[in-house]
Amino acid sequence: VNQILVFGAGRSSLFLIEILERYCQSHPFQLLVCDKDVAYAKANFVQSKNVTYQTLDIFNQDEVEALVQNSSLIVSMLPAALHINIAKLCLKHKKNLATASYVSDDMKALHQDVVSKGLVFLNEIGLDPGIDHMSAMQMMDAIKQKGGKIIGFKSFTGGLIADEDDGDNPWKYKFTWNPRNVVVAAQGPPATYLQDNHIKLMPYHKIFSESIDFSIPNYGTLEGYPNRDSLKYIELYGLHNIKTILRGTLRKPGFCSAWNVFVTLGMTDDSVQLKFPEHTTLNTWLKSYLPGEQTNQKEYIKSYCQCSDLDVQKLEWLGFFAEDKLPLCSGSSAQILEAVLTPKWKLQNDDKDLIVMLHEIEYELNGKSHTHTATLVLNGENSTRTAMAKTVGSPLALGCIQILEDKITQKGVLAPMSKEIYEPVLEQLHKLGIQFIESHS
Amino acid sequence: VNQILVFGAGRSSLFLIEILERYCQSHPFQLLVCDKDVAYAKANFVQSKNVTYQTLDIFNQDEVEALVQNSSLIVSMLPAALHINIAKLCLKHKKNLATASYVSDDMKALHQDVVSKGLVFLNEIGLDPGIDHMSAMQMMDAIKQKGGKIIGFKSFTGGLIADEDDGDNPWKYKFTWNPRNVVVAAQGPPATYLQDNHIKLMPYHKIFSESIDFSIPNYGTLEGYPNRDSLKYIELYGLHNIKTILRGTLRKPGFCSAWNVFVTLGMTDDSVQLKFPEHTTLNTWLKSYLPGEQTNQKEYIKSYCQCSDLDVQKLEWLGFFAEDKLPLCSGSSAQILEAVLTPKWKLQNDDKDLIVMLHEIEYELNGKSHTHTATLVLNGENSTRTAMAKTVGSPLALGCIQILEDKITQKGVLAPMSKEIYEPVLEQLHKLGIQFIESHS
Repeated sequence: VNQILVFGAGRSSLFLIEILERYCQSHPFQLLVCDKDVAYAKANFVQSKNVTYQTLDIFNQDEVEALVQNSSLIVSMLPAALHINIAKLCLKHKKNLATASYVSDDMKALHQDVVSKGLVFLNEIGLDPGIDHMSAMQMMDAIKQKGGKIIGFKSFTGGLIADEDDGDNPWKYKFTWNPRNVVVAAQGPPATYLQDNHIKLMPYHKIFSESIDFSIPNYGTLEGYPNRDSLKYIELYGLHNIKTILRGTLRKPGFCSAWNVFVTLGMTDDSVQLKFPEHTTLNTWLKSYLPGEQTNQKEYIKSYCQCSDLDVQKLEWLGFFAEDKLPLCSGSSAQILEAVLTPKWKLQNDDKDLIVMLHEIEYELNGKSHTHTATLVLNGENSTRTAMAKTVGSPLALGCIQILEDKITQKGVLAPMSKEIYEPVLEQLHKLGIQFIESHS
Repeated sequence: VNQILVFGAGRSSLFLIEILERYCQSHPFQLLVCDKDVAYAKANFVQSKNVTYQTLDIFNQDEVEALVQNSSLIVSMLPAALHINIAKLCLKHKKNLATASYVSDDMKALHQDVVSKGLVFLNEIGLDPGIDHMSAMQMMDAIKQKGGKIIGFKSFTGGLIADEDDGDNPWKYKFTWNPRNVVVAAQGPPATYLQDNHIKLMPYHKIFSESIDFSIPNYGTLEGYPNRDSLKYIELYGLHNIKTILRGTLRKPGFCSAWNVFVTLGMTDDSVQLKFPEHTTLNTWLKSYLPGEQTNQKEYIKSYCQCSDLDVQKLEWLGFFAEDKLPLCSGSSAQILEAVLTPKWKLQNDDKDLIVMLHEIEYELNGKSHTHTATLVLNGENSTRTAMAKTVGSPLALGCIQILEDKITQKGVLAPMSKEIYEPVLEQLHKLGIQFIESHS
């Protein structure tokens, strides 16, 4: 009996474990799941003779190495920065590896060594990255196969909350994944994309004020803002004739303009450490971001941030104009804002999250322009069995099974861009209810 | 005869060398000035038997060390990052050091070693930092001495162009120092300051839209924007009861709101490398920063950047709406913008630069509020004998003389905050025509 070793037993591992455990029922494999804390997994994940949950200090290198050595496939759901250590151990002991994270430069540098040992290090096989690559490549390969020339590609994804669970929250948003990533989203270099053959750059302070509306079939309207670097997908997806390429993130209508108030004020800054007296209120904290005199604070903010009453109302709902105490008095602006938002945007037990992914591909065939659209709209079951966990964990589990059954002929550090990987995985995802609605025009 | 060794013979060294050479005329010292290129110095600096200009590769460590070893005082006018190497050699060979740069963390770490060898490493003794520290400390020490309690401190400095040399340039600005520093000015962490006992933070994208006007005695109106970290001056200047502290940069009226157009568009970004086809025009480049459709480009910019016709006219003067070719087709946005601005904002031979420094100190004495204001307004003579070179080089030279005459009793890594340093230097600066106009109310 061979061992499948999973590092990381957090919320996103639920469906990964569930699918791999089911596979073990009919195949000669055992599943070992390690994390510094396995209480959540023991309470919420599948329990069977095929799976063992084990406490592990991931920085205990001897123990980690022994575990890798005794396994035939390693799956890392650890924070992305920790993959490279695991990857080097996999290389040393000739083990295959799977992750749902972007290929880092460190990981990419291992490619030749991984090839020469005949191994597969399969990455970017979660939701985003993952399902986005696979579904887009399937659509584009089909267009190319019938002789079409792809000239435009837009792809947007959002991790949202089901409409019926919005409650009175005017943001229509809750944290369905890492809150910190939401607070610092879009920071760093300007977003770059291609529009009608023009390179476009959009700085952070403009990203949320320039969101564009999308009409999602079988859902309704969402708004999207550009992600960091869309240009790299020209090379990655082999789109050398493309005139427009834009990848981005989806939010419910009204979110972006209100979030832009925090960006404009500087409340998402993560570079300066602050210290406020205990019992500081949200309103006093807010004043740190408002220069000059304010006789009417709300009007001042509307003018200073060029925002609407609706945006200001969203701040009010969070407690910014009342005597609410600041939940965290020292840290960066971003850390304090996260602490303010966390209780307000917390997923309740029965809340269902919502994943929406949209691809819009324009192409020319026989002298005519066509558009091929595909949309994934998936609700979670509750706050444990989330659509996020399902769409991250399922493709990763299915990719693992491809590796275990030796069905991937390519070797090296891979992402699921080729047909031999994406086709069987998408077929199985369809059976799990993760399916796109397509339209052609 | 002892040797004074100066590293760096660029434009800002002119007055430094002039004053030190004059000192050598009546004292047993010789001046050795080293740079990778001494052509500018040989053509423009004082020539005499007391001073030698020598070509030197600053990365030739053996040669640098031999020079340090044979000198009694070392002055570094090199880029700030190169000071630490010189400082370590000075420590090794027990030599005093002077620079006009901020004390870096590396430099600060040498303090105890410098003290224990009985040496003086005098830094921050140029214009800003330098004259700003010394003049402010002199004012504040005087207020404290008569029992006053300092409650407010504002200090603004600008390197500008004399009004009569503005020409038709609507920006009323030319490059009188490093163009790159002007282009990336205020980037990085938000500016922080204290206003009426409230900590304030201002992000980069708000700095230039929120400039405030100052009326400068004997000059007129200028506008100022906050510099990075004003809060650190509370500790540095010992201002523990202060309610308002703000340091910043001065520009002529209208500059900041027009510069804010570049900031808002993202044209000052230095993080993403771009490549445009040859023969790209300024206008085509501009379009990379304008999302969406523009039927009327100027109106689009006014709306997108919340700017005025006057701001757009300043872009027009630079060639953004004509067929002007981009002078640099690959590089970061900031590098391209610098290449666009450099020929337009170049100092002509007869142009006179202008230095303005303003201190505004509020204090309480015997139950009453007072304001003590001091202003320095200094014109350069021409594009070589600039006010910038004079105000950077003169205090540094005078600090060197204090060291040579062993008049500084403190040892270690110093800045000119104490009376024993600033008093004689300010007195000598006054004789050189670098003097503040003061007013009390």
